Amino acid sequence: MSKYKLAIAVRKDLEMGKGKIAVQVGHASVLASEHARTNSPELWKAWLDEGQFKLVVKVGSESELQALKVKAESLRLATHIVHDKGFTQVAPNTATCIAIGPAASEDVDKVTGALALL
Amino acid sequence: MSKYKLAIAVRKDLEMGKGKIAVQVGHASVLASEHARTNSPELWKAWLDEGQFKLVVKVGSESELQALKVKAESLRLATHIVHDKGFTQVAPNTATCIAIGPAASEDVDKVTGALALL
Repeated sequence: MSKYKLAIAVRKDLEMGKGKIAVQVGHASVLASEHARTNSPELWKAWLDEGQFKLVVKVGSESELQALKVKAESLRLATHIVHDKGFTQVAPNTATCIAIGPAASEDVDKVTGALALL
Repeated sequence: MSKYKLAIAVRKDLEMGKGKIAVQVGHASVLASEHARTNSPELWKAWLDEGQFKLVVKVGSESELQALKVKAESLRLATHIVHDKGFTQVAPNTATCIAIGPAASEDVDKVTGALALL
């Protein structure tokens, strides 16, 4: 098991295609990595050295996504919500996914551990 | 249209699920972003400021993926191939996708412009 992980929760209610989902997760990954690099460089390096472990889970609505943000912040975990420009598939500025971490796996699991993998 | 882009070509022959694909694209995005940050910081910042434009296309085999690498390198574009650890869905060390860029869109398009979106 990885000591550190980045979890990304994607809204399944938007019914995005797999390419669209991948782009959103790519955005979330870069935002989360950059934030960790500049704010928690030792944690960031440990996460990268371990192979930048990621997992993608699903939520059913924007309110579920926002609830994850509140819970993550209560544990002092970094969060980044991706807002899509909405050129395709979704309306402009739609919140498509949220990155939680990278952080200690046991802490991330407190937020996303009960969610199903996408 | 974005002046800069990161293209990620995913192997469809592996028949990965959408969550698995998203994780691979997340890995590729962080590798490509980090390389650009340390090697081409001005280009990297321009790409980020524009909204870190990404697109995900598909290739049919590892040989097609490797051919993209050769073509991209002939244009002096950065490439990163993601090798999966293979805990799920694919064999260990399988090449799952390739990142090309971020770079000027017109240059990236010379490599991936003819490929279908995933």
